[in-house]
Amino acid sequence: MSSTFGTLFRVTTFGESHCKGVGAVVDGCPPGIPLTEADIQVQLDRRRPGQGKITTDRQESDRVTILSGIENGLTLGTPIGMLVPNQDQRPGDYKEMRSIPRPSHADCTYQMKYGIRSASGGGRSSARETIGRVAAGAVAEKFLSLACGVEIVAWVSSVGTISSPDVDLDAVTRTAVDRHPVRCPDPETAERMAGEILAAREARDSVGGVVSCVCRNVPAGLGEPVFDKLEAKLAQAMLSIPAAKGFDIGSGFSGARMRGSRHNDPFVLKNGRLGTLTNRSGGIQGGISNGEPVHFRVAFKPPATIGLAQETVDFDGKPATLEAKGRHDPCVVPRAIAIVEAMAALVLADMALIQAGRAAGFRG
Amino acid sequence: MSSTFGTLFRVTTFGESHCKGVGAVVDGCPPGIPLTEADIQVQLDRRRPGQGKITTDRQESDRVTILSGIENGLTLGTPIGMLVPNQDQRPGDYKEMRSIPRPSHADCTYQMKYGIRSASGGGRSSARETIGRVAAGAVAEKFLSLACGVEIVAWVSSVGTISSPDVDLDAVTRTAVDRHPVRCPDPETAERMAGEILAAREARDSVGGVVSCVCRNVPAGLGEPVFDKLEAKLAQAMLSIPAAKGFDIGSGFSGARMRGSRHNDPFVLKNGRLGTLTNRSGGIQGGISNGEPVHFRVAFKPPATIGLAQETVDFDGKPATLEAKGRHDPCVVPRAIAIVEAMAALVLADMALIQAGRAAGFRG
Amino acid sequence: MSSTFGTLFRVTTFGESHCKGVGAVVDGCPPGIPLTEADIQVQLDRRRPGQGKITTDRQESDRVTILSGIENGLTLGTPIGMLVPNQDQRPGDYKEMRSIPRPSHADCTYQMKYGIRSASGGGRSSARETIGRVAAGAVAEKFLSLACGVEIVAWVSSVGTISSPDVDLDAVTRTAVDRHPVRCPDPETAERMAGEILAAREARDSVGGVVSCVCRNVPAGLGEPVFDKLEAKLAQAMLSIPAAKGFDIGSGFSGARMRGSRHNDPFVLKNGRLGTLTNRSGGIQGGISNGEPVHFRVAFKPPATIGLAQETVDFDGKPATLEAKGRHDPCVVPRAIAIVEAMAALVLADMALIQAGRAAGFRG
Amino acid sequence: MSSTFGTLFRVTTFGESHCKGVGAVVDGCPPGIPLTEADIQVQLDRRRPGQGKITTDRQESDRVTILSGIENGLTLGTPIGMLVPNQDQRPGDYKEMRSIPRPSHADCTYQMKYGIRSASGGGRSSARETIGRVAAGAVAEKFLSLACGVEIVAWVSSVGTISSPDVDLDAVTRTAVDRHPVRCPDPETAERMAGEILAAREARDSVGGVVSCVCRNVPAGLGEPVFDKLEAKLAQAMLSIPAAKGFDIGSGFSGARMRGSRHNDPFVLKNGRLGTLTNRSGGIQGGISNGEPVHFRVAFKPPATIGLAQETVDFDGKPATLEAKGRHDPCVVPRAIAIVEAMAALVLADMALIQAGRAAGFRG
Repeated sequence: MSSTFGTLFRVTTFGESHCKGVGAVVDGCPPGIPLTEADIQVQLDRRRPGQGKITTDRQESDRVTILSGIENGLTLGTPIGMLVPNQDQRPGDYKEMRSIPRPSHADCTYQMKYGIRSASGGGRSSARETIGRVAAGAVAEKFLSLACGVEIVAWVSSVGTISSPDVDLDAVTRTAVDRHPVRCPDPETAERMAGEILAAREARDSVGGVVSCVCRNVPAGLGEPVFDKLEAKLAQAMLSIPAAKGFDIGSGFSGARMRGSRHNDPFVLKNGRLGTLTNRSGGIQGGISNGEPVHFRVAFKPPATIGLAQETVDFDGKPATLEAKGRHDPCVVPRAIAIVEAMAALVLADMALIQAGRAAGFRG
Repeated sequence: MSSTFGTLFRVTTFGESHCKGVGAVVDGCPPGIPLTEADIQVQLDRRRPGQGKITTDRQESDRVTILSGIENGLTLGTPIGMLVPNQDQRPGDYKEMRSIPRPSHADCTYQMKYGIRSASGGGRSSARETIGRVAAGAVAEKFLSLACGVEIVAWVSSVGTISSPDVDLDAVTRTAVDRHPVRCPDPETAERMAGEILAAREARDSVGGVVSCVCRNVPAGLGEPVFDKLEAKLAQAMLSIPAAKGFDIGSGFSGARMRGSRHNDPFVLKNGRLGTLTNRSGGIQGGISNGEPVHFRVAFKPPATIGLAQETVDFDGKPATLEAKGRHDPCVVPRAIAIVEAMAALVLADMALIQAGRAAGFRG
Repeated sequence: MSSTFGTLFRVTTFGESHCKGVGAVVDGCPPGIPLTEADIQVQLDRRRPGQGKITTDRQESDRVTILSGIENGLTLGTPIGMLVPNQDQRPGDYKEMRSIPRPSHADCTYQMKYGIRSASGGGRSSARETIGRVAAGAVAEKFLSLACGVEIVAWVSSVGTISSPDVDLDAVTRTAVDRHPVRCPDPETAERMAGEILAAREARDSVGGVVSCVCRNVPAGLGEPVFDKLEAKLAQAMLSIPAAKGFDIGSGFSGARMRGSRHNDPFVLKNGRLGTLTNRSGGIQGGISNGEPVHFRVAFKPPATIGLAQETVDFDGKPATLEAKGRHDPCVVPRAIAIVEAMAALVLADMALIQAGRAAGFRG
Repeated sequence: MSSTFGTLFRVTTFGESHCKGVGAVVDGCPPGIPLTEADIQVQLDRRRPGQGKITTDRQESDRVTILSGIENGLTLGTPIGMLVPNQDQRPGDYKEMRSIPRPSHADCTYQMKYGIRSASGGGRSSARETIGRVAAGAVAEKFLSLACGVEIVAWVSSVGTISSPDVDLDAVTRTAVDRHPVRCPDPETAERMAGEILAAREARDSVGGVVSCVCRNVPAGLGEPVFDKLEAKLAQAMLSIPAAKGFDIGSGFSGARMRGSRHNDPFVLKNGRLGTLTNRSGGIQGGISNGEPVHFRVAFKPPATIGLAQETVDFDGKPATLEAKGRHDPCVVPRAIAIVEAMAALVLADMALIQAGRAAGFRG
């Protein structure tokens, strides 16, 4: 249940760590959109493991095959099936976790919920589950880009206690983000972040971080009051990413400390339309996009799987010491960039189609 | 669209500020549950305006009538219709907003989205929309309480820059919360918060705040990976509340600053089941409840409607000064308590029914 | 569960026979559509009881109040709440049914499913449940009529073994249908049908019938392959009506007897667009409307509640003779017309919005 | 849009005639159920083309691979991805249809709806789309069989004007049905039906037919009033099958000709529970299963693609004669058996989980 997301632009993902493959079915993508495997591969490559010392060693080329829904390079409007085979599986790495649930991992809750669990422990909590999201998000981005020029850029804004200086929301690009493997567009901060990640790795530990994201050229009017407000669906989308612990939009938690007179965004005339002078609203007012950049942050906890010895108990409740083997990321945020962008694109594409239906509705 | 929330335990709300009434239809509530209007009224009373100097002056008794779904004091399993008439309407108060959209309010985005807007400006962004949620949430709470003894308690943990000291998650009660109209269980902090709210009010300004919430006795196994993870649906639910700008769970944003070795919650044996020594996970691992208290925070911005003069532009883009008349809250968090509790209850009730179906499925 | 129907144009109904009222919430109706209570009342009047000898005696004026979603006679795009109070309740009439479930009625299955049932026995299987549908359908019709000139006309095509001659699908009107209270547009047949209904009534019995329906000016392109094909959603909509036992579209069951060479509808040029010479497809090919009239039939069984003595058993399994008191229709089809039209309108409105979103999607 | 079906037990299908493959993702299947590819293959084999003279010549082995969701032969509770590669593609066969839409086929409506169409014309209206349904249905059947011993058997009850005598609903088996490739359990009738199919084939024509289906051991209480009544979801499910034109349940259209006194099913005591003496209700009353066998019929039109010359017009509206090449079935019902069974299983599995949730809800 619930491996499907979206109302009109809808993705269904499947696959866990040690099965034959992972993938997604995108249903509801409008017809006639140019789409190739390369469009999707570029984001999968930003997400894939084995990108250097700051990520896991698991070697997966993560090559996507489009199974359906495309002919002559154009979407048909029918479901787009996409498959990425699993290759570098080492279930043996997980032997110890079979009897000892990893603290703060999903091993134990999967067992509690399903009464069974996969060899790898956490089943769909595996990072490989996110491949389907990224593939689907790339399709959504292609649609959004052609339909209204939407640009989505995410970056690492903090690792542990190291935070990036403010980034120019109007100017930041994926090229700038990708200059350093940590994916913080400020080179000096990126280097310090990399140091922190490597230090955690060497200590057989892990470290958390924050991803920031901006969506530019989002048309005004997206978001469905009251339960599917744009920020509400973004919040769901982001908190559904493995290891996410928090979401805030615009002024977010810091806005809760302010007075209204300072917080409110005054209206101004911008190229003939109403815009706002400041953007503490994060591009959304009352659940509806206002034409300003949508920007938000997602907090990620440190990965639960660490090599350091942990005093815990096994599934039978007996005291045990766990030193996780396996291959794991010391910090998820550099790879999470592509997932955050994908989930943002999926939300926006869905909301764009719903609003287009309403707007066109009366005109027939 | 999207005034419906939930899959099996499902609420649909209706109504805006200046129509005949507001309400909700709860569909999917299990049959045979004792339920009276009084069960619902108690939470509506905690949400209603006119609770003293720190809330709006609008006088609404907000008396609920159950229209359907109950006979002889028991739920029938059929839709429970609930209606609260609007009484103290003063559309005249909103005259000025007809030409000048309130900065950071939904006046402008409703116009952009729908091409029309209600006399009160923000349509369903009105605080009165939340009445239906609170009524529905009270039904969900009744079910959860009887089915598994769930207890949900929310409180004000900060107002502006004033924060409450840590609250005992195992012990805090609604009685303790309600001792002070600010609804912070720490009396000394509550008094300082009240001072801050009154100061904002006197300055014809407003102020933000944070609501914290704990859900105790949540059974292990709730939450539907991957897109309807428990924290993801809570995030959607909370960000759908008017003025909410952020959500985090367990360690949340502060967890992003930690290392894994410090952040992980070791397992321990608790009354014969696996529990955790600490609870930085906030009661959820991998999207699934683990039996520990679920606790999270919701950030609310300062209300957009303030009496202070604001330099902005009108709908035509002409410079204008807005001094909002009308009646409005200087700070939403004291009344938001009941809404946060209601939304948490709606998420948990839905997830409980879904998981019950799975668990019972195989046994037939 | 499942008192909600539709994806973008969505109705939620509530209420049973002996509660305070019945009604509906329509969510997703496009904004800016002129709508008054009179628009809705006209269809409620065609559905209401007490229309003469061929219907039940229950006296209900069934006056609708719009609670929300309309201002100055225009839809706001927000949920439209509608309420019809129950007036002529006589729960005493149902005393006998409390111990003896009516054969072929829902008394027994409601008890099996919910473990509880309302005083009137069948809970939501009451004909009063359909009031919400008719009210919502009237809103959908208003939208469809303005957006694309859709016309929906249903009529009684058979009562018992009496069948109407073929009706001109291009010409039949509600005025023609309403000329006789039986609602068959062929006057001579209508009279014979009335005779059959009165004969059944006098025999304290009931009789079945068939409703036919045509939807004209349905734009080509509506219907969502593969599970929400237009005929599939119509089939669900029609079989959800109380007492419906069958649905077929175009050639329907008689088409199953034909060869393809006779059954196929050749294409012809019609006013510059591709049309078909015949219409055995019923206006739908591959789940998608083709611009021809959509026409279908719905079979209704004879009402289960009859005054004639029936040998059966009570809830304890003991032999019992049931002679149902209460007030009931000897034949449902004359009143079912408005319900069939409403459900057709709800399906078409939803499909129109979904397709509008797709069509507009790529153009932005 | 809408390639997903179900609420808790949910299938998403993908693939068309000439892409790399077709398949399905089953989400929400309870964990711990024994499931192998062989369980699925047996139904795919009953559906696949090339089963002899009465079906199309297209040669497809239709071997299924399970991609995810199973470990050690047991379901994990996670999405079950299934893939069947397309092999015997001959897009050249469809050359003529590129300019001339087949009468009564989906070539034209797909073009109208999507503004684009696949090489094979009808896109997802291809019979190959149903492979995903059959695979998913086999999973649902496995669950239903283990959970409550449900048995689903469909058979051909008519071909053209040849109808089978009544079949014993309590006794008919798939073995009996499969004895003749036509899949009518009455051998003599099956032979005559085969004659009719071959005659149509030889005449380069096609012929319609009716499939009947019985579901035994369906627990009482399934079906969700009011819009997701059991018969309503079955109707949607069946009308979503390619070429289906009608559905009726129990007495169906013939019940519309009866009086209530003859139609009603009196209650009797059966093994300590309330059953009915007759079963004109088709196992459902008020939208809820009553414990009796659920039985219904589905009408299928003659296939639209025929070799006989048809006078029609091309996409530009110019007169044209079409003699379809390609390989196609002269009659769909022998292969449709497996699809009808699959769709029935999908509806029942979903309803069983929803009801289990309700029933378990209150007990926690």
